[in-house]
Amino acid sequence: MKPINVGVIGCGYWGPNLIRNFVDNDSAQLRWICDVDERRLTEMLRRYPFAQTTTDYQKLIGDSELDAVAVVTPVATHFLIASEFLRAGKHVLLEKPLAATVQQSEQLVELAQQHARTLMVDHTFVYTGAVRKMKEIVSSAELGDLLYFDSVRINLGLFQRDINVLWDLAPHDLSIMDYLIERQPEGLSAIGSCHIEEGIENIAYLIMKFPGDFIAHFHFNWLAPVKIRHTLIAGSSKMILYDDIEPTEKVRVYDKGVTANRVADREAAYQTLVSYRTGDVWAPKLDTTEALRYVVAEFLDSIRTSRAPLTDGPAGLRVVRLLEAAQKSIKCGGQFTPCSANS
Amino acid sequence: MKPINVGVIGCGYWGPNLIRNFVDNDSAQLRWICDVDERRLTEMLRRYPFAQTTTDYQKLIGDSELDAVAVVTPVATHFLIASEFLRAGKHVLLEKPLAATVQQSEQLVELAQQHARTLMVDHTFVYTGAVRKMKEIVSSAELGDLLYFDSVRINLGLFQRDINVLWDLAPHDLSIMDYLIERQPEGLSAIGSCHIEEGIENIAYLIMKFPGDFIAHFHFNWLAPVKIRHTLIAGSSKMILYDDIEPTEKVRVYDKGVTANRVADREAAYQTLVSYRTGDVWAPKLDTTEALRYVVAEFLDSIRTSRAPLTDGPAGLRVVRLLEAAQKSIKCGGQFTPCSANS
Amino acid sequence: MKPINVGVIGCGYWGPNLIRNFVDNDSAQLRWICDVDERRLTEMLRRYPFAQTTTDYQKLIGDSELDAVAVVTPVATHFLIASEFLRAGKHVLLEKPLAATVQQSEQLVELAQQHARTLMVDHTFVYTGAVRKMKEIVSSAELGDLLYFDSVRINLGLFQRDINVLWDLAPHDLSIMDYLIERQPEGLSAIGSCHIEEGIENIAYLIMKFPGDFIAHFHFNWLAPVKIRHTLIAGSSKMILYDDIEPTEKVRVYDKGVTANRVADREAAYQTLVSYRTGDVWAPKLDTTEALRYVVAEFLDSIRTSRAPLTDGPAGLRVVRLLEAAQKSIKCGGQFTPCSANS
Amino acid sequence: MKPINVGVIGCGYWGPNLIRNFVDNDSAQLRWICDVDERRLTEMLRRYPFAQTTTDYQKLIGDSELDAVAVVTPVATHFLIASEFLRAGKHVLLEKPLAATVQQSEQLVELAQQHARTLMVDHTFVYTGAVRKMKEIVSSAELGDLLYFDSVRINLGLFQRDINVLWDLAPHDLSIMDYLIERQPEGLSAIGSCHIEEGIENIAYLIMKFPGDFIAHFHFNWLAPVKIRHTLIAGSSKMILYDDIEPTEKVRVYDKGVTANRVADREAAYQTLVSYRTGDVWAPKLDTTEALRYVVAEFLDSIRTSRAPLTDGPAGLRVVRLLEAAQKSIKCGGQFTPCSANS
Repeated sequence: MKPINVGVIGCGYWGPNLIRNFVDNDSAQLRWICDVDERRLTEMLRRYPFAQTTTDYQKLIGDSELDAVAVVTPVATHFLIASEFLRAGKHVLLEKPLAATVQQSEQLVELAQQHARTLMVDHTFVYTGAVRKMKEIVSSAELGDLLYFDSVRINLGLFQRDINVLWDLAPHDLSIMDYLIERQPEGLSAIGSCHIEEGIENIAYLIMKFPGDFIAHFHFNWLAPVKIRHTLIAGSSKMILYDDIEPTEKVRVYDKGVTANRVADREAAYQTLVSYRTGDVWAPKLDTTEALRYVVAEFLDSIRTSRAPLTDGPAGLRVVRLLEAAQKSIKCGGQFTPCSANS
Repeated sequence: MKPINVGVIGCGYWGPNLIRNFVDNDSAQLRWICDVDERRLTEMLRRYPFAQTTTDYQKLIGDSELDAVAVVTPVATHFLIASEFLRAGKHVLLEKPLAATVQQSEQLVELAQQHARTLMVDHTFVYTGAVRKMKEIVSSAELGDLLYFDSVRINLGLFQRDINVLWDLAPHDLSIMDYLIERQPEGLSAIGSCHIEEGIENIAYLIMKFPGDFIAHFHFNWLAPVKIRHTLIAGSSKMILYDDIEPTEKVRVYDKGVTANRVADREAAYQTLVSYRTGDVWAPKLDTTEALRYVVAEFLDSIRTSRAPLTDGPAGLRVVRLLEAAQKSIKCGGQFTPCSANS
Repeated sequence: MKPINVGVIGCGYWGPNLIRNFVDNDSAQLRWICDVDERRLTEMLRRYPFAQTTTDYQKLIGDSELDAVAVVTPVATHFLIASEFLRAGKHVLLEKPLAATVQQSEQLVELAQQHARTLMVDHTFVYTGAVRKMKEIVSSAELGDLLYFDSVRINLGLFQRDINVLWDLAPHDLSIMDYLIERQPEGLSAIGSCHIEEGIENIAYLIMKFPGDFIAHFHFNWLAPVKIRHTLIAGSSKMILYDDIEPTEKVRVYDKGVTANRVADREAAYQTLVSYRTGDVWAPKLDTTEALRYVVAEFLDSIRTSRAPLTDGPAGLRVVRLLEAAQKSIKCGGQFTPCSANS
Repeated sequence: MKPINVGVIGCGYWGPNLIRNFVDNDSAQLRWICDVDERRLTEMLRRYPFAQTTTDYQKLIGDSELDAVAVVTPVATHFLIASEFLRAGKHVLLEKPLAATVQQSEQLVELAQQHARTLMVDHTFVYTGAVRKMKEIVSSAELGDLLYFDSVRINLGLFQRDINVLWDLAPHDLSIMDYLIERQPEGLSAIGSCHIEEGIENIAYLIMKFPGDFIAHFHFNWLAPVKIRHTLIAGSSKMILYDDIEPTEKVRVYDKGVTANRVADREAAYQTLVSYRTGDVWAPKLDTTEALRYVVAEFLDSIRTSRAPLTDGPAGLRVVRLLEAAQKSIKCGGQFTPCSANS
């Protein structure tokens, strides 16, 4: 089987990881490495002397042998670059988030459809052993009715120039929730604060309301003294604590819950009897394979079999919808913002 | 010096702890124990045979030898009971929160003033070694400019019948913040959900906006699989993590921060240079004395010296203001609710 | 059914806990409280006005209505006091360790037999939910072949005057091991050091060799900056980590192991193929009832039904055998000391 | 300044890390990569196309342009390889432990002296930020008199074929202790057990006695369900807990201690008053630079300046002395084995 020729555009922090995984995958042939910084290209070339390098991504568009590209550039450039490649008939893997706006994301989804090309977004966490195991558990319905999703992702993080903490960190948790819960909120409210640089929020809280009494809440923070990555997924029967900092026992399933029964008492008045249940805790074994290995495999396989990848364009669009609504709410001081669910 | 004669009304979960601390304090003489449940009185009497017991608190009002009472009854009854005792010239210590409404709280403050009696609220956490040490640190200004306050208090908690998770847990963190930060928010927004019993929120998120860019956020939850009590207090120079679950090192001071400087580059354009600072971590030794011992001592000393106690009526009123505003916001689906600061 | 009349001798740190549990148990009637310190008796009397108090335990011996005593005095006095009560036909519960020497312990076991009275030692940890759950697991054989037992019990502890860290802390872990493993070592070696007071070891290490390749190791320490109570029980199929400091998940069962298979290679030489197995982790729900409640219930039930209690005289004797051998080894600078197993 | 030409022999697990650090150091020029496995050489060559590769280390001996080698081969081969290079006038960095026996180690030290060449052992942990910070603290004498050193290094580790857990793990902790404490024990006792493969201990305990009452104890284990790397260093004034698993706060200094004073009481009898002190805990900021970077820099600098490196031949010899004594004690069932201190 002929390998898929791929190019990687952007060799900053994340790009080299994608390159390494493409090189390790037998279905791919790394053909191009592209970056605006010559020094990075030199460094990459030393490691991968068989690849071609360029500072001009147009060269990749013009290469008829090239099948697919991974675009690992600042989010503001995603739409422009990706749309050119889709139009040129190349498959595109985009770093998260898919694009800078809902409109751009919608157009990319549409373009991919028109040209019958794979459009995939690198929602890396969806491919981790921890999240896939949680998907298994949630799908099995053993949690009972889902009650809430609560996520905290804080650290003394690297400040970004072009995007705020929401656009930097939220795609991780929003894509995890989207994958696990498969529900869209009715609306959301977000509040942020800019302590370091005007106009760039470094802390943000986001709360979402869903049909029924399910709610979701998120805390994103670049300015915390400790690194915390906690997610609670509560069901009426069981609850999950996902602690990504734990070296091995990242997912714990608690056989705990509260049930309420309305019972008639002697005087035929009704009251609620609340009963608590506490059972075992279970930390399932997790696949520790690097998630990016699966990202690359999923991209290549979806190209080869002409199927939608797990984190396809619409998945990326759903996350951008939430980001855009949250950003709007922050700018309006936390105003409740409805989420259109027509994705 | 003649001891102060005290009565304790309410012997449920918390009352017996107050009784024990009054008995251990030489400045007090436990004179009355009152509860609606005869069995509890019998049990108390076995431990403290020298006290008088009654199911009718009016007996205490009529006892001219009685100086002061501690009221440890459901919050809905605070106003009625406390106002009768104040009118009868007794000093009153109220379990948190001070009262069920702002109006009631204001009247209690006024009544105490009119009758020149001590009105104190049992904001227990304010008297812990951890919170007093944090007060020392915050007061020394070594944190720099305060940036945010973030508190998480979650557990598989005991469901209350009469109040929701907000009125149950928030008084702890709101009184801690009030004591440490000494600022009043401009407004707040709160969202909750009722998963167990209709009308009784078991999870609530609360966010507050203050003048400037300082913000505060709270997560209260009766339905979490793990017990977490985390508070972050971030300053521009240092940050505190207060983890009340830690057996000894409850307070950690992180010499960490981020600073931004706007500098002119070669072309005289301005850009921000962000620099990170990471230094030592310091866990100060804490006084491990039971906080309630200090609560009781403060109540007795403020009676004896006719001074306002640390957690006086106005402190209790400030917390009830925030609770009432938060409750209002929850009922309006998270609407931003201004906080009147005239306390 | 007539309650069993009991007396408690010794009201220092641990005695009041036993008194409280006897009072709470319907099968017992607290008849006597005895201590050499009058003030402690006064304090106890205030709580339990129905009991008789005395500073002279001979009064209890002479009380024909008294059925049983709990002896919670310094270990040096155990033999004298217990033997007098056994001779007088009373049942005896002794605080751990059973007695100060093997000889004394053997005589107590014999005396109890001669007079057909219950002799029990308060190996409290054996009655905890954690240890009982581990017993269940070990008994089920799911751990496979037992490989080693490793225990660490360290803290900045209270220095004792009359005994060293070995006699203070080791009874806990030795009784746990005795209960769980049901094997006697062939010999042991122990080393200690006296950093604070000459002749009183404040740190001790103890290693035991058993038939086969099973070994056990213990670290006892009164002079550590942190509190650690860790026990590893490794089997060929699964392993347990028992962390007594954990608030809830004290026992974790790791589905982990290593297996070695000797296989012939191409040249018919044999080599060992080592394979690793890593599976789920499981933290079983534990009974959180106070262990002392079960201690008291076991003592009373064994009296009533004339059966041997779980932690009977021979169990106490086995632990003292190990303590005496360890003490001897320490005094000889860690010399290997055989353990007679004739218990 | 002309760079030092280096060769690296052995590209298994650790060798590539040394290669990478030599390449990153401007004072070195990577000239040779040597391994018995051709495939590893091919892989290395792809990364470092400028280096020469060979499966025969004799080629390096014969290269007059080569200044120094790093030998990262099984310990059984250290002596042979290193002695040839020293005789050929090359500087030698040996992976830990220095050699397989004391005799070999002594000969290497002698050879290095005769040929005036640098002989260094890669005791990597000595170069970590954590250990260097602890050295600072111990040297400042703020711990007071040193009382004990207790180290636990356990994991479900990779079984080695040629060496047991002692020779695999102990060099880390023994070199740390040697560097921090600068004392040699009078003797030691060690016990091990072979649960997986006959003749290869997978668990070992080691205890050392020093002049005075200072003792050291070690637990090494390849067959534990959890990864623990704990070292306690107790002094009469302060104590250190070094937890290498902690992501950032690896070193904690506890201002804790116990002091004993002998005082005369009223009857002129002497008794000991024990007093406890508990103060702050302090986690100093640590240099997070990769330790191997400093290893390589130290090797190159000691070559250039003709000075002894921090972990020189005698340091490696001291560790091998302890390993050999411990191995001897294990084979004699834990017999106390004197340590000759003439290093």
